[in-house]
Amino acid sequence: MRESLKSNRKWAAIFLLISILIGIALVPQLNKYAQPGAMTPSENQFMYEKSVDIMVMLLIGFGFLMVFVKKYGYTSVTATFLLVALTLPLYMLLRPYIWGSASDLSIVNISMLLFAEFAAASLLIAIGGPFGRINTHQYLLIGLMFTPLYALNEWILLSGAVIPAGAFLDTAGSISIHAFGAYFAFGLIIMLTKKKDREIKIESSKKSSQFMLLGSAALWIFWPSFCSALAPVDKIPLVATNTILALCGATLATYALSTFIRGKIDVSDIANASLAGGVAIGASVVNITPGWSMIIGSIAGAISVIGFAVIQPRLQKLTGGIDTAGVHNLHGMPGVFGGLVAMALVSFPLWQFAGIVSTVVFALIMGLIVGFVVSKLGRIEIPYDDTSEFNDADYNEN
Amino acid sequence: MRESLKSNRKWAAIFLLISILIGIALVPQLNKYAQPGAMTPSENQFMYEKSVDIMVMLLIGFGFLMVFVKKYGYTSVTATFLLVALTLPLYMLLRPYIWGSASDLSIVNISMLLFAEFAAASLLIAIGGPFGRINTHQYLLIGLMFTPLYALNEWILLSGAVIPAGAFLDTAGSISIHAFGAYFAFGLIIMLTKKKDREIKIESSKKSSQFMLLGSAALWIFWPSFCSALAPVDKIPLVATNTILALCGATLATYALSTFIRGKIDVSDIANASLAGGVAIGASVVNITPGWSMIIGSIAGAISVIGFAVIQPRLQKLTGGIDTAGVHNLHGMPGVFGGLVAMALVSFPLWQFAGIVSTVVFALIMGLIVGFVVSKLGRIEIPYDDTSEFNDADYNEN
Amino acid sequence: MRESLKSNRKWAAIFLLISILIGIALVPQLNKYAQPGAMTPSENQFMYEKSVDIMVMLLIGFGFLMVFVKKYGYTSVTATFLLVALTLPLYMLLRPYIWGSASDLSIVNISMLLFAEFAAASLLIAIGGPFGRINTHQYLLIGLMFTPLYALNEWILLSGAVIPAGAFLDTAGSISIHAFGAYFAFGLIIMLTKKKDREIKIESSKKSSQFMLLGSAALWIFWPSFCSALAPVDKIPLVATNTILALCGATLATYALSTFIRGKIDVSDIANASLAGGVAIGASVVNITPGWSMIIGSIAGAISVIGFAVIQPRLQKLTGGIDTAGVHNLHGMPGVFGGLVAMALVSFPLWQFAGIVSTVVFALIMGLIVGFVVSKLGRIEIPYDDTSEFNDADYNEN
Repeated sequence: MRESLKSNRKWAAIFLLISILIGIALVPQLNKYAQPGAMTPSENQFMYEKSVDIMVMLLIGFGFLMVFVKKYGYTSVTATFLLVALTLPLYMLLRPYIWGSASDLSIVNISMLLFAEFAAASLLIAIGGPFGRINTHQYLLIGLMFTPLYALNEWILLSGAVIPAGAFLDTAGSISIHAFGAYFAFGLIIMLTKKKDREIKIESSKKSSQFMLLGSAALWIFWPSFCSALAPVDKIPLVATNTILALCGATLATYALSTFIRGKIDVSDIANASLAGGVAIGASVVNITPGWSMIIGSIAGAISVIGFAVIQPRLQKLTGGIDTAGVHNLHGMPGVFGGLVAMALVSFPLWQFAGIVSTVVFALIMGLIVGFVVSKLGRIEIPYDDTSEFNDADYNEN
Repeated sequence: MRESLKSNRKWAAIFLLISILIGIALVPQLNKYAQPGAMTPSENQFMYEKSVDIMVMLLIGFGFLMVFVKKYGYTSVTATFLLVALTLPLYMLLRPYIWGSASDLSIVNISMLLFAEFAAASLLIAIGGPFGRINTHQYLLIGLMFTPLYALNEWILLSGAVIPAGAFLDTAGSISIHAFGAYFAFGLIIMLTKKKDREIKIESSKKSSQFMLLGSAALWIFWPSFCSALAPVDKIPLVATNTILALCGATLATYALSTFIRGKIDVSDIANASLAGGVAIGASVVNITPGWSMIIGSIAGAISVIGFAVIQPRLQKLTGGIDTAGVHNLHGMPGVFGGLVAMALVSFPLWQFAGIVSTVVFALIMGLIVGFVVSKLGRIEIPYDDTSEFNDADYNEN
Repeated sequence: MRESLKSNRKWAAIFLLISILIGIALVPQLNKYAQPGAMTPSENQFMYEKSVDIMVMLLIGFGFLMVFVKKYGYTSVTATFLLVALTLPLYMLLRPYIWGSASDLSIVNISMLLFAEFAAASLLIAIGGPFGRINTHQYLLIGLMFTPLYALNEWILLSGAVIPAGAFLDTAGSISIHAFGAYFAFGLIIMLTKKKDREIKIESSKKSSQFMLLGSAALWIFWPSFCSALAPVDKIPLVATNTILALCGATLATYALSTFIRGKIDVSDIANASLAGGVAIGASVVNITPGWSMIIGSIAGAISVIGFAVIQPRLQKLTGGIDTAGVHNLHGMPGVFGGLVAMALVSFPLWQFAGIVSTVVFALIMGLIVGFVVSKLGRIEIPYDDTSEFNDADYNEN
């Protein structure tokens, strides 16, 4: 126990140093943020509103969606806070270096904030995989390594330097955000799942399930802002309608299929798979119509439920990796599906396909490497229990 | 038990089919949504922000306001998800047919989404009546029948085809949304309350009450967006101020009157009756001034508290119908009161009055019919307990 | 017990009367709200969106941040509802009289609503001090006296009548909102803490901590809207980026320092001190750059953690006053720090300094006086327990 306090303190000191360094490095860079083409104050304001909505998704949505793990309810929210607080400035700091001349930056703007929020979203997806089995400082270490790798993959897909500009369609990140995060998680869990973890059932509690539903609702509600954040202003009505219909389709399909497969409604399926429509529609949301959006959303919801109910247990046996939050079912398969759908809408389907494959492979390999590094730096004492790290967490709850 | 699993599966399959049909029917209709008069991108964006705010009210507000029923905490949120997911596309699909030439639709727009969200709000009000005593598939059946009936009543009041255009004042739906939902619920509960239901006390729990307060706060906060969603942009400051002062008046009146009647503060009164100001101000919110708004809100709060504390028990004895969420107290009486207040502001008070009466009568009769149909299609095994329908719901909680 | 019911009823009647009087007084004043310089509909709409975001902070943010006190979970939310409902109309009513000719008001506008929301925020900070040890009617009495005093201090700082216009920099209220509320609380608790209070430990519960984290997340997310509400539209990207980086800095510093001092992560530190960056950046947020914002935020977070872990226990021994929510650590010291930082950015640092000192002294003295008055009007029967005031609150919870 004393050992653990000492280790906690050591890591805290390291991260204090890192965050001070990021802050200091950001000072001279302050005038380096701009956007391709000037935006009017109105456009900035519109984007600002989206940036707030996406922050709800990050801190309340992702934070509470993972609260379901009993005895581990503190970490889901505090780790979310910490990872967001680390990634936003880190991404802002690194992006100009990674994007290079493709990112001609000279004034502070909102789109930089939005891109940073997308990076944070992808990271929160990635840590959903090993969630419950690593320490707070390991979450932060993953964040430190993930952020530049994410920005690098984003640069490959979207900067025009590798894939020709416009050839890869992924407006709201089915591939660059969701699939990248999910397959990075896949790599992580192969390295970070220990034998002991497989023997312990992940328990959830009724109360936590209500917080989980709150997190899910926050994601559902603000998803149209996620999808329309970087869309042209005149496309917002279309993007909003498409996103909402994709989510409606996924929600109905989830209820129907979950009940059909399990005989009873599964709250966790509803909370998760209902969102798969948003994941899948992301790639094509500006270029598609509402009816098709609902159909694509329904299929994504179905894929996700089948993932949770059928594929996940088999995959777990096969790879030995436990995917705590089921991110492969929610972000992995529906994300890839959404990216593939967009092949029908682009001029060069092969570039689209290449971008999907390269993202999955790159994320998986990087996840394996990062997972290996992190596995060398301690592990949580008892899986799915945050008492060793938190004051006042030796509670009983239902 | 096995019987129940089989029945759950059968209904799930039916709703899967229905949702696929809605999706397919929406595909060719995709280009059929438009608005009378073009909107600028800014106006669309403003409406978009309102549509997001209203989604918070639907999924978090209504969803968690009903979470207070102990042992029934899953259904309130999941049924809300499902009904919203069903009604939004269904309304978008049906409205052009019901409104006919009054709805000259040719492009996708945000006002269609807003109208669909209003329909979903009215439906969530309606199911608050029989809440806790029917199955998930019955909620969905009610939704299927409610949506076209709601659109029909909306057409009578607001299309100009029956009541002359502009003669009926109901900007934010005191009558068309709140009173319609509440009196539809009144019809439902007369048909759906069984003898057994009257013998069981509806239990609530402390923790659930905090979720209920969260739901209430979400409704309070975003109510100004509900009221201003379809208001002219230059009226937004007035509408926001009026709505907030109506809610302030109702909140203060609720505290005072609830404490005066009961001797102690009743959390459920605060969570519900505080919102009555928003319900009542809906009809006249664009045409009234802030001082009057606060007074109207106070009166509505008082009506609602008296409804919960005094009228509801008597009405229940009289009609035999149990109104679980007390929607008659929150949406019924304050809605009608708000509609009547607007009589002082319109040119043809008789048309206003006729619209109110016709809505109440139509909603009541349709509620009775729909309730009768739904009562033939099974019922929940134990009232106010969702264990027969949900996995992992056999929990103990305070 | 009967005595208490009778007393509850008496106070309820008094507040019913007061709220009716406010409503009636507002009727003729309705045309008295305007702004210096006309705003376009777009600007009004932008401000409207901010006003909604700030309402989330008031009702969900502040409301749930204080939910952590076990057995007192009802009051934190209901008192928040009531105080907001009282202060918004009261401030709108009083401001034209207090600001006098500096406030040339002739139409209803959104900035009046924003100013009223700021007053409510400051009041909610103030009651965080004696929280858990006074009755509902005492919260309301404090609100009645606080609101005009707050408006008076605001007039001294910002109207130009005392301190020259533009000489005091406090765009988002580090001093006028946060420090004023916190030092008012300081005065209150010296008068309102009884010997018995000091003998009882303030208990918190795990579940309540999750609601606390929800409240904290709501404050974190919408803080950029709090900071940019009155900023020029073209500064919004800068203000949003600055605010978010200040919060990121504070969050990372809180985690690091809290863990370093205590050995384990303290959830209450994370929920509170992470927000200190937002408090401190308020004064200078329009005039500073992102890198510096992160550094100022980090320092503010550090100050706040040291406040919670080290200073508060000593200060409590020294003054005898118990600061339930630790508002001095979150709003007091970081607010003053933020005001002092702004001295480096203003033309007349002495005016800035004078404004800070006068606010702290004025708030403290007024808090003492109001605390004395309120202490004569009853006290809660058992500290940190709201069963005597609430129906159905005799609950058991973890």
